[in-house]
Amino acid sequence: MDIISNETIIKYKNNAFETLTDKVATEFPLTIYINDTEFATLVCTPDHLEELVIGFLASEGVIRSFNDIKTMNIDDRGGFCHIETTREIPIDVFSFTKRVLGSCCGKSRQFYFQSDMEMSKVSMSKTKVTPEQIVDLMETMQNTSDVFKETGGIHNASIASPDGIIVQRGDIGRHNALDKLYGYCLKNGITVHDKVIIFSGRMSSEVLTKVSKIGVGIVLSKSAPTDLALRLAEDLNITAVGFIRRGGFNIYSHPNRVIGAKEE
Amino acid sequence: MDIISNETIIKYKNNAFETLTDKVATEFPLTIYINDTEFATLVCTPDHLEELVIGFLASEGVIRSFNDIKTMNIDDRGGFCHIETTREIPIDVFSFTKRVLGSCCGKSRQFYFQSDMEMSKVSMSKTKVTPEQIVDLMETMQNTSDVFKETGGIHNASIASPDGIIVQRGDIGRHNALDKLYGYCLKNGITVHDKVIIFSGRMSSEVLTKVSKIGVGIVLSKSAPTDLALRLAEDLNITAVGFIRRGGFNIYSHPNRVIGAKEE
Repeated sequence: MDIISNETIIKYKNNAFETLTDKVATEFPLTIYINDTEFATLVCTPDHLEELVIGFLASEGVIRSFNDIKTMNIDDRGGFCHIETTREIPIDVFSFTKRVLGSCCGKSRQFYFQSDMEMSKVSMSKTKVTPEQIVDLMETMQNTSDVFKETGGIHNASIASPDGIIVQRGDIGRHNALDKLYGYCLKNGITVHDKVIIFSGRMSSEVLTKVSKIGVGIVLSKSAPTDLALRLAEDLNITAVGFIRRGGFNIYSHPNRVIGAKEE
Repeated sequence: MDIISNETIIKYKNNAFETLTDKVATEFPLTIYINDTEFATLVCTPDHLEELVIGFLASEGVIRSFNDIKTMNIDDRGGFCHIETTREIPIDVFSFTKRVLGSCCGKSRQFYFQSDMEMSKVSMSKTKVTPEQIVDLMETMQNTSDVFKETGGIHNASIASPDGIIVQRGDIGRHNALDKLYGYCLKNGITVHDKVIIFSGRMSSEVLTKVSKIGVGIVLSKSAPTDLALRLAEDLNITAVGFIRRGGFNIYSHPNRVIGAKEE
């Protein structure tokens, strides 16, 4: 599957029109069936589909480990993925979108969807990063991404140790990029508590819950957070660093994991 | 409700840490109940909530017109919206996420969710825009948006005539910004076939179906499209213009609505 499509366009520049061919990001629908029941359709960049499905199902709480998957068949022409599980899995589609208002970690009343509340973990990570590592990791990820990915609207996400990137994934969907990382970690048995996630997009509440589910304690973003994401970061003991640009950055929560910043 | 929250952050700049207060975009969960049944939770920027709910419900096919709503009560502290409808509305949550592969408009086999397929309309719009109007409309929208909205990750969407912007809305959610416009049009009885939508975000398939549901024939974006969005634009007879930057732009579909571009 190609993640780029060539399209005929009309370009207007310097007061003149010109017909030419340009690259456009592929947007691919992938419908997941679990034990022959239609479960969900993801709209994604069509690479690393197996990792995407594994990460998505783990993130939604459908599977607890990679071993829950008995067989997986991906038809990447039609955009269908059939999963057979090793144990019976009750599929309650309704529960995913049910709103839950509860006390999380005894601190405050935050907002979660039911599946998020069940799957989010308070981070126990003891990993620390230096300011130089923060800046270097973001620069490395951005440099690895080509110009098309930047202009084509593909979000990048990487899992890294403080010293360097382990794996990088991209997707037109912000959350898909994170699910591909999650799937990679589960499939390959990567330990996560000592890792860092680097993300090109904004830190919304959904991004923070994904980071928590993956089990990482530090998230580095090029962009801004939302207030709700910061409440969750606070509760889930995640260090959220944003606006990593031109050698500087903002620490929004749990600065104790950034060496040199004020201890909590 | 404030759309901005003040947060204490630690800024790292020029090799030094400094504690200060910074603005962060508010992310607000709004749970919609229809005739006492929980329907959906939107996570949004908390302004123009009534328009957001109207636009969202119309876009999902739950209401056909503004008159279908008998009462609407928004509790913007708790984040709940209770709707009573004038006629009975069968709520089939499952149908929204069911994938449909079908022949659309006799042209090609495209991808839609079931609710999208039912609500999308082939545009009959005869409206045309000049290259200068395209550039001006995008510049006007961007200039109206303040720096916070740019850096805070808030997407802007406007509905305009070729001569100027009628109303502009912003939201941390790309689709919410479009739903707020849709709600505005429905509530105020705005004719749409002669209008243009201006959008700061990427043109995904979901953006294109929203534009189609609103009933507008021209969409102007600052960013890139996806290939699937272009297939839909082709089928739904929508003129998609992207990468509107520095006086230039790309026309991706139905160039006949751009004066001076090659006729189809």
